[in-house]
This record gives sequence, structure tokens and C-alpha cells, in this order.
Amino acid sequence: MGSPFVSDVPAAQALAAWREARVAAGCPGRVDVVRVPVGEAVGRVSAEPVWAVRSSPAFDASAMDGIAVRSADTVGAAETTPVVLGCDDFEVVDTGDPLPPGCDAVVMREHVHRTADGGAELRAAVPPYQHVRSIGEDISATELLLPEGHRLRPVDVAACAAAGAFELAVRRVPLVVVVPTGDEIRPPAADLAPGDIPDTNSLMLAAQAREIGCAATVTDIVPDDPELIRAVLDEAAARADLVLLIAGSSAGRDDHTARVVARAGSVAVHGVAVRPGHPVVLGTTGATPVIGVPGYPVSAALTFDIFAAPLLAELVGAAPPERPTATARLARKLPSAIGMDDWVRVRLGRVGDQVVATPLPRGAGVLTSLVRADGLLVVPSGVEGHHAGETVRVDLLRGLREIDRTIVAIGSHDLVLDLAASALRAADPLCTLASSNVGSLGGLVALRDGLCHIAGSHLLDPATGEYTLPYVDRLLGADVAVVRLVHRTQGLLVRQGNPLGLKDISDLTGEGVRYVNRQRGAGTRALLDHELARAAIDPDRIQGYAREEHTHLAVAAAVAAGRADTGLGILAAARAFDLDFVPVAEEPYDLVLRTEDLDNPQLSPLWTLLDRADFRVRVESLGGYSCAETGKRIR
Amino acid sequence: MGSPFVSDVPAAQALAAWREARVAAGCPGRVDVVRVPVGEAVGRVSAEPVWAVRSSPAFDASAMDGIAVRSADTVGAAETTPVVLGCDDFEVVDTGDPLPPGCDAVVMREHVHRTADGGAELRAAVPPYQHVRSIGEDISATELLLPEGHRLRPVDVAACAAAGAFELAVRRVPLVVVVPTGDEIRPPAADLAPGDIPDTNSLMLAAQAREIGCAATVTDIVPDDPELIRAVLDEAAARADLVLLIAGSSAGRDDHTARVVARAGSVAVHGVAVRPGHPVVLGTTGATPVIGVPGYPVSAALTFDIFAAPLLAELVGAAPPERPTATARLARKLPSAIGMDDWVRVRLGRVGDQVVATPLPRGAGVLTSLVRADGLLVVPSGVEGHHAGETVRVDLLRGLREIDRTIVAIGSHDLVLDLAASALRAADPLCTLASSNVGSLGGLVALRDGLCHIAGSHLLDPATGEYTLPYVDRLLGADVAVVRLVHRTQGLLVRQGNPLGLKDISDLTGEGVRYVNRQRGAGTRALLDHELARAAIDPDRIQGYAREEHTHLAVAAAVAAGRADTGLGILAAARAFDLDFVPVAEEPYDLVLRTEDLDNPQLSPLWTLLDRADFRVRVESLGGYSCAETGKRIR
Repeated sequence: MGSPFVSDVPAAQALAAWREARVAAGCPGRVDVVRVPVGEAVGRVSAEPVWAVRSSPAFDASAMDGIAVRSADTVGAAETTPVVLGCDDFEVVDTGDPLPPGCDAVVMREHVHRTADGGAELRAAVPPYQHVRSIGEDISATELLLPEGHRLRPVDVAACAAAGAFELAVRRVPLVVVVPTGDEIRPPAADLAPGDIPDTNSLMLAAQAREIGCAATVTDIVPDDPELIRAVLDEAAARADLVLLIAGSSAGRDDHTARVVARAGSVAVHGVAVRPGHPVVLGTTGATPVIGVPGYPVSAALTFDIFAAPLLAELVGAAPPERPTATARLARKLPSAIGMDDWVRVRLGRVGDQVVATPLPRGAGVLTSLVRADGLLVVPSGVEGHHAGETVRVDLLRGLREIDRTIVAIGSHDLVLDLAASALRAADPLCTLASSNVGSLGGLVALRDGLCHIAGSHLLDPATGEYTLPYVDRLLGADVAVVRLVHRTQGLLVRQGNPLGLKDISDLTGEGVRYVNRQRGAGTRALLDHELARAAIDPDRIQGYAREEHTHLAVAAAVAAGRADTGLGILAAARAFDLDFVPVAEEPYDLVLRTEDLDNPQLSPLWTLLDRADFRVRVESLGGYSCAETGKRIR
Repeated sequence: MGSPFVSDVPAAQALAAWREARVAAGCPGRVDVVRVPVGEAVGRVSAEPVWAVRSSPAFDASAMDGIAVRSADTVGAAETTPVVLGCDDFEVVDTGDPLPPGCDAVVMREHVHRTADGGAELRAAVPPYQHVRSIGEDISATELLLPEGHRLRPVDVAACAAAGAFELAVRRVPLVVVVPTGDEIRPPAADLAPGDIPDTNSLMLAAQAREIGCAATVTDIVPDDPELIRAVLDEAAARADLVLLIAGSSAGRDDHTARVVARAGSVAVHGVAVRPGHPVVLGTTGATPVIGVPGYPVSAALTFDIFAAPLLAELVGAAPPERPTATARLARKLPSAIGMDDWVRVRLGRVGDQVVATPLPRGAGVLTSLVRADGLLVVPSGVEGHHAGETVRVDLLRGLREIDRTIVAIGSHDLVLDLAASALRAADPLCTLASSNVGSLGGLVALRDGLCHIAGSHLLDPATGEYTLPYVDRLLGADVAVVRLVHRTQGLLVRQGNPLGLKDISDLTGEGVRYVNRQRGAGTRALLDHELARAAIDPDRIQGYAREEHTHLAVAAAVAAGRADTGLGILAAARAFDLDFVPVAEEPYDLVLRTEDLDNPQLSPLWTLLDRADFRVRVESLGGYSCAETGKRIR
């Protein structure tokens, strides 16, 4: 199949090699200088130092509301020996007024007693220059106000205007041209045939460029034809400061990027030791830098952060964007292959006195892992991952104060938690409910280990037929409370019209019935096992019993795609994929937490929400849910 | 003079009172909902939860470049027992291709050996679903993608587009109308008469509003006439979501804000326990919130942060902007009055293993204190300040990685340091030279206490006639290096034409000559004392000897304003204020540092710069400087 030519160049080395290639190709180190009115300069980067042209204030001014006096006239004034100034010996001044000629000090209005004939009685002597704002106190003409290479903020432009700098030399806004390629790529809103992929990367990359102060345009989608790609690349390079050529950057059949860039200019790097993002291409076309951006959305987003953003900052001579960092305790083991920087997306929340980081799905195609991430954790190429509970440093994608307000739920997934997350945020923009789906048992273990506030559970104990409580007793002991969230109906998800005519659990052993199961530790798995035991059915007789998916929706997706005929799940999951639903059992879904957290203000918005009638109406309208006991403490 | 009606309401209480007043006045809690195409939604705030309309991927797809197979066909394949698939038993697939019907797994290209007749030899069995990206792996139709109240980022809009949400319900962009008032206020670029103040606040406040995603317009400047202000306020309130009425908010003669707002609507708060920013007015006009913004620029900027920004975030239902924080060691004592939250601007730099915070000038009129600030330190109303060396928490205005690269200079001020600061930044946007001016002696003490990297000094020892070194011996001991920065000429700054005909130091005792001195510990003060001793002149005979300013430029400003006739200073300061200059002495200006810091990479850009010929040319062109020994280590 031909040997792929994708290397594993460490990121720092890749950046250096690309820089060298850009210098060799004659790429400009900075974009041009333009002069703009100071009012339009916010967000731009200064291209020259800004020196003050005038002083501010431009005159000696009163710093208070009161009266301007000659300090010499007040010598000797005291409580017992007040001095009275005649009405010609002072002048009433407001804050900011110029000091009248001859005056050298100001007395605050509160310390002046006006006499009947318009004089002013002072009960304290006044030192020279009291409450006087001296000329140049803020800015002295000719002083350096701002250095070159400074990204201008509102206070900066105000200071420039005060200092008489009405036009500023700044760097031109760099232009990024995004070129999407691929026969299978369609505009996002197009009707998609099987195999078609919506071009969401162009939207994202252009927005990323604009977010850091650049201009961005997106070309039409270019088919997988090297000649066509070359033509569009040349045209883009002629007007862009950076070209982002999307997809086709791995070494598969349709991956022309590296070859096209090599022919149009030079390839400095093909393949970096970064995951996701490995098959990136760094090169030049003419005197324009080009990045071949991998097509997986997480790879594309991180490629922008790691390679495009530093270059674009360099082109305007500014410091690259920097994310604040924090330390966090890792909620679970995080293996990582040696030889690659591993960019892991994590959810963060404060549990007790520590920030806990829960790794999100790591696939390069799982864009929602970036959407849901509160932080990025880089496992460097020399490190083989981290143990659960290890302290790690993360780059923050959300503010710590927001993270401090986050309710961390780990356990079984339920749509009601999603609904609650949205309702909580709507009521208070600082309130977040973050749930990670690891199954009921995994949630109880996470609660035991201090990694979450709440574990969502619907674990059936086969011995007692009771839900959750026996497990809580065994795993967690005394200081734990259990609050009912909902009752919900579990059933068999089947294709429209129930083509195999399944009626209950006993039909799962039927000839040719392909089942898709949930993972061990999932409440739905325990429910199946319980129902099988009640019906005395041997699990080995079910084809697909060993095949595991991790969420209700994944089970529904497998049935919808025809990879399986049925699986146990909730009604809402069936509705999501237009499936039919054969009810099997009603079960309680409960929230388990430490008793002390019942009074934790971080969690109180959730209890308030569960009491709201409108919220209960919305839950029941999802179908398959009952709120009869919602919010009730059952232990 | 009438009793001022400005109270000291704590900030949190003021925010609560204002909220109550807004509710009472019928101000909307949120701005309206509008629907925008997903590509225009970045930076906007979601007004509804976003639910996925389609799954992503929408089909089972290959996750690798390779061949799609039936896993059952590969059972038994191993190194010693390879399985060969005929060319009809597999299909070549690229990453992202839909899985062909019948296939349930993918083998990576690297693990396939093609046979001469087009078959594929496998040396390992393949489990079902290996390298298959399942339908819905990223997004399952109907799942909650984003909650309400979420500020949309590039990854979010890409995920929305992938999930089939092409139009999003977001909050309208709030409109802020800025109304500058005051008889003395002029457009920034106008020619200013004495007493005129350029309106830089409108520029700044409008930019602050835009920076957090709002629209902003500025009205013409309104004279100090309550009727006129009322008319403009009513017109502004009719179209704005928030009106910022600038200045006139203290209780002086021209301060109509509170009265006008009270008449047009209601005043909830007049005066908050915050410094700077104390005389703020919080109220409503009709159903529109109004802030009376104090006219001092630092007060205006902080008033926006403390009162306007949270309201504007609330109007769109988003979390208010949040700054990252860090802990730092305070470089010097910071007194603070009980009863007021004191917002102190600080410079930050890493010295040794600690971040050091140096307070900047605290006047509400010193906008450059905000321009130069790396952080904000709030001393709460219940705390009477902090001791030198105390650890404090600061809100960061710059990234910590930038702060880590900052060279901290404390000591005597010299323009060459300003020039170096700009040149260093131009060469490397991450390199900052931050200098605080406390005089030569103060700098040496700061170096001793580990609060800076470099102390700029030109301290003359009267006993030996030597500069700096005797003080270094006394204060700092052995492990200290001294590097020459420049030689510079000190002289008497006098008004144009030298009206008093001063020729040298001995003329300072002349009848009617008003001197302005530098503070104790300043090198220029030591130079004067040395010259006076040499000429056997009693300092008491100099009128104004006790009058102290803290910088060369402040001395020049005093002479320019006619508050003094002369003072000792450098030529560049004379030029800044168009003064004449009577040379008195040439002196060396040196940089003192710990020997170990000679090799500190943080400082190396400075040594490189001092060696650059173009930099020396620029220094000498300032006038009054010689670079003959620049960069030479003299100890």
C-alpha cells in the first residue's frame, strides 16, 4: 500500500524547523505597519513605541472640591486659633479646576467654615501643594507611554489620547485563508448522503483566527484533485498571511496536502509527536506559511492552538495567547503512549478543597470533548501517563471561579441530568452541572474516592431486588444520603415497527437476534442480569451479550445503524434515534452524595431546581419518566 | 458650602441595592433573544439550550486508513499462521470513509501485507469494531449539546453545525450609550486651554464595553446644565441597555449627575466604599439602568469593571468576566484606610522563586498606573493594608508566563531604561523591563531584600567622591555585580532664556530663587549635597531645599509650571518641558545586580541590547548621555 511518510517530530522542534523554512522562503517576520486613529486601535498591536506628546494633567489642578488658598496665609491656623480668609483671599474650586494664579494649595470643602460675610474660616494650617494635582502627575510629555509590541487595551488608548497620541502605528490585521478539501466534504447545512462529512472545521478555524484578532476567509470546498488544490493554494497564498489547508494531511489515498505543498513550495515538517494532531503539515508556498490541518475536528482545533496561533502572534509582534493554569487531582488513571505529547481534555470541579480533573473521551473525532472541556492536560512525550489521584497541572479553558461553582456528577447517564444542567445555567450563568458517564458502580466508587459531589445510580441488587441502597451500604458506609431523581422506564430499543416482534426479555435468545449490551457496572446491565435470572435465562444464549456500549444513546445508535437488533435502554434514547420501544421495567434513578454535602451551597441550586413544578413538567414530557418522588430523600 | 451627600456603601451591598432598584423600575432582566446563523454566533451567548438534531458521525466510519474486513474472516491469524483475504473479501478505506456493508472492522494500512495477486495478508486476528468510529460517537441526535447561558466559542459553533443546529437562539448584543458631561471637557484631539480636560474616558468606556461583547456609542459632550443633561439622558436611556453618564458624580458645584438621575428616575446608591471610584451613582431612568461614572480615569475604568461589566453579563445571561489570580510577595508596605475596598495597581515580576508585587501610584487620576499594571490587588475595607514582604493574592492583567520573563528594575529613574524597555519588547514580545522609581538608595535596599533583579543607581558618596560602589559595599556585601549603563550630565533646569541668569550651584542662594529638590535617597539629591559641601554652602540658605519631588520629570514640571525657578536634573527632562539647561556635573549611572543573575537567562536580553551599536546611537541622540562605558562591568 505504499509506505506512509509521516514522522513524529516533537512540537518544539517542528516549530523551529518551520521557522527556518519560513526564513529560507522569505516569509515576512512581521506584517506591515499601518497608522490608525487611536479610537480604532483597541486590540491592535503597537508597531512603534508611543511617546507622550503632551503632559497630563497639562496644568496644576485642584485634586478636591474646596477652596484654593496661599498656604502662607494659613500659617498658625488651629482649632483654638482659626484663621479667617477674606473673600478675595481664596477661590472656590472643584476637582480638576486649574489652580488660580498665586494659590498653591487646596482645602477640602468639608474643612472650610464659611462666615456670614463670605469669608472662609480654617482651623488647620495647610502645607504647600496640599490637594494639588501637579502638571504631569499622570503623564509627562516625552515619557515612554507604551513599548512596541503591546496589544492595546481600553486603558492604553485612553492614555494615548491623554498624551496627545491621536494616531498610532500598529500592525496590519493578518489574513488567514482557510481552504477545505475533500470529495466527501459538504457545506455544513447541506443534506448529507452516507459518507458525506459536513465542513465544520472551516467554520471553527476561521472563528479561531478571528478570536485572536485576525481576519479570516474560507474558500469553496476543493475536491481531492492535486491540480485543483494547487491552484486554490497558490491563489490563497498570494493574498494570505497564513493558509490553512484542511484535511488530506495524513498519508492515505486522497491525502494530497503534503505533496501539493512540497510542489508549490516546501514542506518543513510532515507529522508531529502530538496527539491529537499528529499528521500536520508545516510548510510554505511562495513567501506564505501554510499549515496542512488534519481533518479530525479536535486535531484541527489543537493544530491551530499549537502551530497557527504562535505564528499569527509573531506576525504582529505580540506575545502569544496564554491560558491560565491550575493544579488538579486526576479522577482516574490516564495511560499515555511514550513518544507523543498527549493533549487530554478534562472536566474540572472543586470537590472538598481540591480541584478534580476527569479526563474526557480522547478520540480526535470527538469534538464534544473540547466543547465540554474545562481544561487541557498535556502528558508530555516522555511520560507514560498518570495514576488516579495524581496531582497534575492543567491549562484552564474556564475561569476558576466558575469551576468552583460546578456540581460534579459522576455515574450513570440520564437525560434528566442534561436537562437539569441547562436549567441551572439558565437560572444562574455561574452554575454548572458537569456529568461524566461511567455507569452507576463507577459513580459510587468515584464518590467514595472524593472525586465527585453526586453519583447518579440505578443499580439493582439481584439478591434483594432493591435499587442502589445495598451498594451504598457496602461501598460507602454511613455518612451518605440518597435523593430520588426520577422513576424511569427501561425497555428494549428496536427498529421502527419492531421487525423481529420482540415482546420481552425471553425473546432475546431467539434465532438471529443480535443484542448490544451495556458495560459491566452499568445499572442497565444489572437490570438485564436480574431479569435474566428471574426468567432463568442463561446469558450465554444471547448473541452479543459480550458486546458493550457505554451509554443509552450508543446502544440506540448501534440499533439504528443495524449493527444490532436490540438493546436495553430508556425511552428517550429510542426517541433520539427514531426507534420503537418495548417496556421491560420501571426503575428508580437516584442521586447519592455525602450527607455533609446536603448543606453545601455549591449544590443547593440543584435541590431548588428539583422542587420546581415547571422543571418536573419538562422532565415528564421527555417520555418514560415519573417525578412522583423527585427530590425526596430516601436515605 | 452645602453638605455633600455621598455615602460609603460597600460594593456588594451597592450591587444588591441597584439590582432591587432595577427590578422596581421594571428594567429587563435579560435582553431579547435573536436567531443568528451559526457562523455568526461566536462570542454571543446562547438563549436556549442547543439539542443535537443529527448524529456525528452520521454513519459507522473507518477511523484509520487501511482495509475494511469482516472480523470473523480473520479468526486465527497470527505471525506464524497468516490469513490471506481475497480481493473481494476486503475494501480499501481511508479515515472517515463509511464502513462498507458487511464489514465490521478496519485493519491499519501498516499491518496489511498486499500479495502479488491483490490479496491482503493479515498476521493478527481483528476484534469486531476495531478502528471503527461508531455512528454518534461524537454527538448523538437529541443529546444536550450546550446549555442556555453559554458564551459560544469556535469549537462550540463547529459542534452545533456538526449536530445540525444551523441557527442559534442568542441574546441580542447590549447597547451601552456613553454620555460625557462637563464644561471643561473637550474632544481628545482639540487644542486645550488651561483648565480644559480631554475626554479620554468616553473612548475608554466605549472600548471596555466592546471588549466584553457589547455595542457602544458616545454622545456629544454635554455642558454642565441639568436641563441639557436630562434631555440627553432621556434620549440615551430610550435606546440603551445601560447609560454611562461620565463625571459630575461627586458632590461639587457642577455635579449634577445624582440630582439629574434622581429626577429622571431613581438613585439607588450615591457613593460606594471603593477607592478609586468612590462617588459613583447607581440608578435608573425609565426602565434603563444608569451609572454616574466618576471623572478620574482610574475611577472610571474600575467603575466599569465593578459595576457595569457584571450587569452587562447578567443582561445576556452569561458569567461575568473573570481574571486569573496569583499570589505575590509585596515589595513594600501598603497602608490602606479602613472602610474602603482599595483597588491597588501593582507591577509583577518573578525574582528568584517568587512573584513580587510592587504597588504603583494610587491616585485616581494616574491612568498610567493602570496602563503599567500587571495586576490588581484589592485591600478589603476591613484590612488596614499590608506589610512589606507579606503574601497577597492579585488579579492578573498579564499572563504569568509573560510575568516570568519580566526584568524587574527598582531604583533611580532614567530615560535610558525606558528606551531599553521598548527595544527589548520590540525584539521579543515576551520580554518586559519594568522599572519602578524609588531613588537610588531605595533600589539598593530593594535589591538587598530580594525584590528586584536590577537596581539603577547614581549615588555619590560625599566622603570618597565615588559613585554607587561605597554604598554597595555597605549595604549589599560581596555577591553583587555592577554594570555601567551610561554617563549622563546633570544640570540646573531653568525656564527658557534662564531669566534669573543662574550659572552654577552657588547661585541657588540668590534672593528670590525658588529651588525644587529631589527626595532623600535620590542620587540627584546626593549630588546636590556634595556640590554644596564642596562649595561650602549651607543648604538652609536655599529657599525650597525642603521641597521634594520624586522624578526628574516632576522637577521639570514644577519649573515649567512656575512653581519653582530651578531644580537639578537631567537634560532629557529639560527637553521634555521645553526648559533650558545649565550643566553642573557628569555622573555615571550604573546597574547593580546579584552576581548570580549575570547568567540568569531572564536578564540576558538586556546585556545583548547594551552591546548593540544602534541602541547606543539612540541613547546618545537623547542628549546629555555618553555610552563610552555602556555594558562594562565595573565590579
